[in-house]
Amino acid sequence: MERHHFEEELQALKRRLLNMGALVEERVHQAIQALIERRPEATDKIIGGDKDVNDLQIEIDDRCLKLLALQQPMATDLRLITAAMKINSDLERIGDQAVNIAENAARIVVHPPLKPLLDLPRMAEIAERMTRDSLDAFVRRDPDLARDILARDDEVDQLKDQVFRVLLTYMMADPATIERALGLILVSRNLERIADHATNIAEDVIFLVEAKDVRHHHEEPR
Amino acid sequence: MERHHFEEELQALKRRLLNMGALVEERVHQAIQALIERRPEATDKIIGGDKDVNDLQIEIDDRCLKLLALQQPMATDLRLITAAMKINSDLERIGDQAVNIAENAARIVVHPPLKPLLDLPRMAEIAERMTRDSLDAFVRRDPDLARDILARDDEVDQLKDQVFRVLLTYMMADPATIERALGLILVSRNLERIADHATNIAEDVIFLVEAKDVRHHHEEPR
Repeated sequence: MERHHFEEELQALKRRLLNMGALVEERVHQAIQALIERRPEATDKIIGGDKDVNDLQIEIDDRCLKLLALQQPMATDLRLITAAMKINSDLERIGDQAVNIAENAARIVVHPPLKPLLDLPRMAEIAERMTRDSLDAFVRRDPDLARDILARDDEVDQLKDQVFRVLLTYMMADPATIERALGLILVSRNLERIADHATNIAEDVIFLVEAKDVRHHHEEPR
Repeated sequence: MERHHFEEELQALKRRLLNMGALVEERVHQAIQALIERRPEATDKIIGGDKDVNDLQIEIDDRCLKLLALQQPMATDLRLITAAMKINSDLERIGDQAVNIAENAARIVVHPPLKPLLDLPRMAEIAERMTRDSLDAFVRRDPDLARDILARDDEVDQLKDQVFRVLLTYMMADPATIERALGLILVSRNLERIADHATNIAEDVIFLVEAKDVRHHHEEPR
C-alpha cells in the first residue's frame, strides 16, 4: 500500500471510530432518557439494538488488522492503530452499558417514581460528554483535552458515592423503596463504568501523543 | 529480528501473560478469602498492591508494540500479538475487580455476618477457573476449551441473578441487613465482570485460532 493510500485508510479508520462513538453515546443518551421520561417501551429498542454497535466494532477491528498487516507501520502509525483497537473495544463496552442501563430502567419504571433522580442525569451528562471529548482528543491529538477528561472521572466517582449514600438512607427509612433505589444504584454504576471507559480512551490518547504511559501514574493529584 | 529470535520473544510474551493471569487470579482469590474469613486487614494489602499488576501490564504492552514494530509479522503472528494486547487489558481489569471486591469486603465485614455467603464463593471459584482456563486456551490454542468458557459465563450470570433475588428478599424483610446485602450484591457484580473478561479472552482465542469472530454471534444457544 502506498503512503498516500495508507493515510487515506487511517483517516477512514478515525471516521469510523467517530461514528462508533456517536452511536454508543446516542444509545446511552436514549437509555437515560427512557429512565427519566419513564418510557419502558423505549428500553426495548436499546436492549435489542446492539447489533449495529457490534458490527461496527468488528469492522473497525478488521480495518486495524489490515492496516497492521499491509504495511510495516512506523512507530507513530503503529501507536495510532493499536490505540484505535483499544478505543474500539472501550466504545463497544460503553455500548454494553447502554444496554445495562436500559435493562435497569425497564425494571425501575414499572414502579411509581421514587423521587427526582438525584444526580443521575448529571452523571449521565458528564459521562456522555467525556465519551465525545475523548474521541475528539483522539482525532485532534489533544493531550490537554485528554487530561481534562481524567479530572472529570473523579467528579463522576464522587457523584456516584453521593448517590449511593442518599439511596441507602431511602432504603433504610422505607423498605418499599428498596427495589427502585437498588435499580438506581446499579444505573449509577453503569454510568461510572462509561466514565471509566472514556478515561481509558483519554489515557490512550496521551500515550499516543506523548508516548508516555499515564495509565497508572496520573501526574496531577487525583 | 531473525525468525528464531522472534519466536523466542513470542514465547516470552506468552509466559508474561501467564504470570499476569496468575497474579490477578491470586488477587481475586485473596479478596474473596478476606470476605469469607472476615479479615479486614487482608483487604488493605489488595487495595494498596495494584502496582505489580499495572507494571506488568505496561511491560506486556511494550513487548507487543516492539514485536509489531520490529518485524512485519505474518497474519498469524499479527493476530497473536494483537490478541495478547487485548488479553493484557482484560487481565488488568480483572485485577481492578480484585481491588473492588476488597473494598466492598472491607465495608461488609465490619458488620456482623449476614448469613453464609450464598453462592458467592461458588461464583468466585468459577470466575477464577475461567480466568485460568482462558489463558490455558490461549497458550495451547485450544478453541474447545475457549467455547467451554463461553458456556460457563451463562452459569455465572444465573448465579448472579439468583444471589440478587435472595439478597433482595433479605433486605425487604429486615432493613438492618440492607448495607451488608448491598455489599454482597456489588461483590457478585464484580465477580460477574471477572467472568465477562475471561469470556472476552476466550473469544479472542477462538478468533486467533479460527480467524472467526465469535464475539457477537455465539454458535451455541446461550
